[in-house]
Amino acid sequence: MRVGIVGCGLIGGKRARSIAALGHTVAATADTVLDRAAALAKGYPGCAAVSDWRELVKRDDLDAVVVATINDSLAPLTLAAVKAGKHVLVEKPAARSADELRPVAAAARSAGVVVRVGFNHRFHPALLKAHELVNAGAVGDLMFVRGRYGHGGRVGYDREWRANPELAGGGELLDQGVHLIDLTRWFLGDVTDVSGVAGTFFWDMPVEDNGFVCLRHAGGTVGWLHASCSEWKNLFCLEIYGRTGKLQIDGLGGSYGVERLAYYRMLPQMGPPETTIWEYPGEDTSWAAEFRNFEAAIAGERGLGATLEDAVAALDVVGAVYSQSHAKRQAA
Amino acid sequence: MRVGIVGCGLIGGKRARSIAALGHTVAATADTVLDRAAALAKGYPGCAAVSDWRELVKRDDLDAVVVATINDSLAPLTLAAVKAGKHVLVEKPAARSADELRPVAAAARSAGVVVRVGFNHRFHPALLKAHELVNAGAVGDLMFVRGRYGHGGRVGYDREWRANPELAGGGELLDQGVHLIDLTRWFLGDVTDVSGVAGTFFWDMPVEDNGFVCLRHAGGTVGWLHASCSEWKNLFCLEIYGRTGKLQIDGLGGSYGVERLAYYRMLPQMGPPETTIWEYPGEDTSWAAEFRNFEAAIAGERGLGATLEDAVAALDVVGAVYSQSHAKRQAA
Amino acid sequence: MRVGIVGCGLIGGKRARSIAALGHTVAATADTVLDRAAALAKGYPGCAAVSDWRELVKRDDLDAVVVATINDSLAPLTLAAVKAGKHVLVEKPAARSADELRPVAAAARSAGVVVRVGFNHRFHPALLKAHELVNAGAVGDLMFVRGRYGHGGRVGYDREWRANPELAGGGELLDQGVHLIDLTRWFLGDVTDVSGVAGTFFWDMPVEDNGFVCLRHAGGTVGWLHASCSEWKNLFCLEIYGRTGKLQIDGLGGSYGVERLAYYRMLPQMGPPETTIWEYPGEDTSWAAEFRNFEAAIAGERGLGATLEDAVAALDVVGAVYSQSHAKRQAA
Amino acid sequence: MRVGIVGCGLIGGKRARSIAALGHTVAATADTVLDRAAALAKGYPGCAAVSDWRELVKRDDLDAVVVATINDSLAPLTLAAVKAGKHVLVEKPAARSADELRPVAAAARSAGVVVRVGFNHRFHPALLKAHELVNAGAVGDLMFVRGRYGHGGRVGYDREWRANPELAGGGELLDQGVHLIDLTRWFLGDVTDVSGVAGTFFWDMPVEDNGFVCLRHAGGTVGWLHASCSEWKNLFCLEIYGRTGKLQIDGLGGSYGVERLAYYRMLPQMGPPETTIWEYPGEDTSWAAEFRNFEAAIAGERGLGATLEDAVAALDVVGAVYSQSHAKRQAA
Repeated sequence: MRVGIVGCGLIGGKRARSIAALGHTVAATADTVLDRAAALAKGYPGCAAVSDWRELVKRDDLDAVVVATINDSLAPLTLAAVKAGKHVLVEKPAARSADELRPVAAAARSAGVVVRVGFNHRFHPALLKAHELVNAGAVGDLMFVRGRYGHGGRVGYDREWRANPELAGGGELLDQGVHLIDLTRWFLGDVTDVSGVAGTFFWDMPVEDNGFVCLRHAGGTVGWLHASCSEWKNLFCLEIYGRTGKLQIDGLGGSYGVERLAYYRMLPQMGPPETTIWEYPGEDTSWAAEFRNFEAAIAGERGLGATLEDAVAALDVVGAVYSQSHAKRQAA
Repeated sequence: MRVGIVGCGLIGGKRARSIAALGHTVAATADTVLDRAAALAKGYPGCAAVSDWRELVKRDDLDAVVVATINDSLAPLTLAAVKAGKHVLVEKPAARSADELRPVAAAARSAGVVVRVGFNHRFHPALLKAHELVNAGAVGDLMFVRGRYGHGGRVGYDREWRANPELAGGGELLDQGVHLIDLTRWFLGDVTDVSGVAGTFFWDMPVEDNGFVCLRHAGGTVGWLHASCSEWKNLFCLEIYGRTGKLQIDGLGGSYGVERLAYYRMLPQMGPPETTIWEYPGEDTSWAAEFRNFEAAIAGERGLGATLEDAVAALDVVGAVYSQSHAKRQAA
Repeated sequence: MRVGIVGCGLIGGKRARSIAALGHTVAATADTVLDRAAALAKGYPGCAAVSDWRELVKRDDLDAVVVATINDSLAPLTLAAVKAGKHVLVEKPAARSADELRPVAAAARSAGVVVRVGFNHRFHPALLKAHELVNAGAVGDLMFVRGRYGHGGRVGYDREWRANPELAGGGELLDQGVHLIDLTRWFLGDVTDVSGVAGTFFWDMPVEDNGFVCLRHAGGTVGWLHASCSEWKNLFCLEIYGRTGKLQIDGLGGSYGVERLAYYRMLPQMGPPETTIWEYPGEDTSWAAEFRNFEAAIAGERGLGATLEDAVAALDVVGAVYSQSHAKRQAA
Repeated sequence: MRVGIVGCGLIGGKRARSIAALGHTVAATADTVLDRAAALAKGYPGCAAVSDWRELVKRDDLDAVVVATINDSLAPLTLAAVKAGKHVLVEKPAARSADELRPVAAAARSAGVVVRVGFNHRFHPALLKAHELVNAGAVGDLMFVRGRYGHGGRVGYDREWRANPELAGGGELLDQGVHLIDLTRWFLGDVTDVSGVAGTFFWDMPVEDNGFVCLRHAGGTVGWLHASCSEWKNLFCLEIYGRTGKLQIDGLGGSYGVERLAYYRMLPQMGPPETTIWEYPGEDTSWAAEFRNFEAAIAGERGLGATLEDAVAALDVVGAVYSQSHAKRQAA
């Protein structure tokens, strides 16, 4: 496959490396800062670099486009690429809001191209294995999911683009929280009811730094989620409860700690569960696994990757929490 | 002090032992099953045993009464003891509902006696130290509290008295959840808004086995709590976030794991926090500490123990969640 | 099988329970304190209780005898039972010294009875699984074993029988250390060379409270072991290194912490190993598994249990360390 | 201070950065590969770069020299610098053997200059705090130290300079083991007796990949140490036992895990000890702390840094183990 990359920052670079490692061609790069596009292109023989993404999107020699910009450009660039007949892998959250994303999803359906959204956490090995175990009935019917995800920011975090509602579309709930929402939907299915709080407790910024979300899902299961950028020690924890056992994923590697999956299996006599733990201390393989899944989706497989419809659903949850918090503030 | 114990089960026995160890006299015991009252009395020289608690409550030789029955008797027995001019230590939750407890609180105020409610978790060493650290400003102004508490029940759990709404007044939220609510109020203060879900996911019983609660407190802080009796591996975790650090309490000893307090202190340059952890592997000292606090309250000190007003406030939270869940079910 | 128990203390009681649970008959008990024999017998219908073990050993209605006394009686009682044609399960270390045990081993061989020594640690689930993994080649050829085992004693520990060389035959190295030695031999095979230190660092007693042992095994592998009763926090850890991976067993349940087995598998690219951890939080199943193995040995299977020859070999190691430490003290 | 750096590899670079950060001047660099010297010098204004260390050592404008080469040059370069009247910080192990180092120590004493050896582990915050606690009597009189240190190498490790006895002087025992030996001497004092095994179990190289060492110290304390480069998961653990408590240091940051110090304090009633744990997740501060100590030594303070005499003593231990292992192989 010949792939173009729009947005040549940290994530664009990661995408390029994993695409090349899988044997595909990084054929073009685009960044409003041409030097960044050129610097990334240099690593890939024959790769063109441009500053105007319109140029990249209309190239005839590309099969797919990766959109790895900041949030305000994700939806319009994806729309343009889709209209140009390209398959697209767009980074999460794919747009600043569900409303911004809905027309993109419609256009993709019309164009008959494949679009996947980079909810790469689905492809972390601990989460892939948890998903397999759930599907194999290892914990029985699911009851609820508890998720906690957060980091502590860094000096000046409230002056970065993520603190700007125009550029980012929202705060922590849209940034890390949307991963929790997507993962919970992946395990528990469609959301039927949302309540929650988006609040700004620490940072001096007009977007929330903490989002608390309670989801009800079809069948009565519950998602109980908290995302925070005042979580002083980096944390990722997802706990999945079934009627006969529990799965717990901790860590995502690096400063989030070693990624591990614990499987607690209830015994007929109850008491302490049988416990098996798998650790994944190696390199982050989620980017490669996600891209292989994107390839497979282009080849017609259903796959595990998040669709635009998944992203719209996750953004609908975020939007619902924002509305409730806004309404409550108005009332107060 | 001369103390009478009403309710001679597991908790009544623990109370008797810690009271005697503190140098007080266990002077009388009462239990509807006289044999149980007698068995407990046998351990304490000169201790009388009766089957009718009315007899115990009216004895002239008692300074204080411990009420350690199941939930449906907690309020009426406390009321009778208060009216008889006794100081009372009543086990949590002190009543089946806030409405049942309010008149008891009024009576206690009229009678000028001291009543404390056995929210003994306040007196676990990790929580005592956390409370001290918060008061000393070790984590700055508080932002939110996250709590998880649960156990996995046992075979037949849904046939025990805790599964009977008439006897228990509610399910897991009233049983373990009320500790989380009390602790969160202890740290964050008065509750201004409640939302939550009480659901029955696993056990075959007419009370909830899981309670999810979101509290808003004066000043805008948040409590985010979950109590469960389908928590397959016993768990107690309370996380307290301030603007300059975090406190995390894990475990309560025994099957809940070693009790430990972790203190994460943010550095000016941010990044990984400075971390100190204290472990408390010894015997459970909360019962003795709580009783000493009760003594001090009788002697006129303010103390750290939970009052009837605290219990009413916690039960109000439980009741609010029950109403919301009931309304939602009606609507569905 | 009809089984007699000699020595009705803590371990004798455990043995009786697990024997009965396996469907065998506890037919007779003996203890120099007749009350203890009678108390144990009471739990088993038709079980006779005597104070003189000679009486028990010569009974015609017993298939096997369990010898669960303190160390000074283990060898003579086993010898008598063997001579009476009984199969015997004798608690570790089976004697106070190798020299005391060698004639017993010879007599057992002559008598054609089965004797197994209660090195029950072999039958802990984490160790059984580790042994299977090693035999299946999961860590490749073994290189060395590192073992640490210890507890902190208790007030007055140096006044108990374990502190008396006449009764115990030695100190910590003979008590807990002998388990480490047996397990290491189980994994690495025959010992070809021993060096070590037996020292008394803390307790006021004429036997060692710490034993440090270095074993060389056939093929050049090494065992590096330390046993301590001044190990302030209870500890059991055995680390088994192969050319392609490592197995680590931590904990033995109870105050030693949850029993767990970690399996580290090296990848061809090296770097962090693939890791799987199994936890065994349930009841101690080693006693039942060991007795089933004893049954199987009587039925002619080879089995995993320790023989008298294994015990002699372990005691030879202990003796060698004692000689070296004695020689060093003489020289100093 | 004006400092020259000889050996511009990884460690030389670290030293330069921490020296400059402390406000000193990196005035000259030397490396047999001139490009490396120049690359390092570029970072420091006015810093000269040469390929011949003799040139650097004789410069008049230097107060001190850091010797950060591979092992075979450490002693001769230090000797030359000392003779040129410079203070020297030489990386561990300071020489390939004690015999190579003794004349350097003598020359330094004659020259009246300060030489410190880069046993930087002494200056890790967990070890500094452990040393303070020991000196403050927090664990009472010491009894023994247990140490484990190791890594798993990397593909081709046995083709690197550390596998070459001529360049390295020995294997794992000289490389990581010497840190354990130095730390144990730091806590327990002079060594009176050594036994041990140096063996090659995994790597195809003529130096040992595992060293097992038993030290006896003045006063009868014991050091029980193992260093390994077939330790499949990186490990650093030092356990220090006193009569009233224990200190345990785990991790050194990075792939060795978060550095932490656990302090177990025995209670009069014995049982589980009171436990406090400190974690040090931040940057490695040992290099800066060590250099400040070197400065203080130049200013006449005694300080905590390792002297040439300390290095000679550690190398004597290594040499003794090598002799014993050689003798055993001869005998076999």
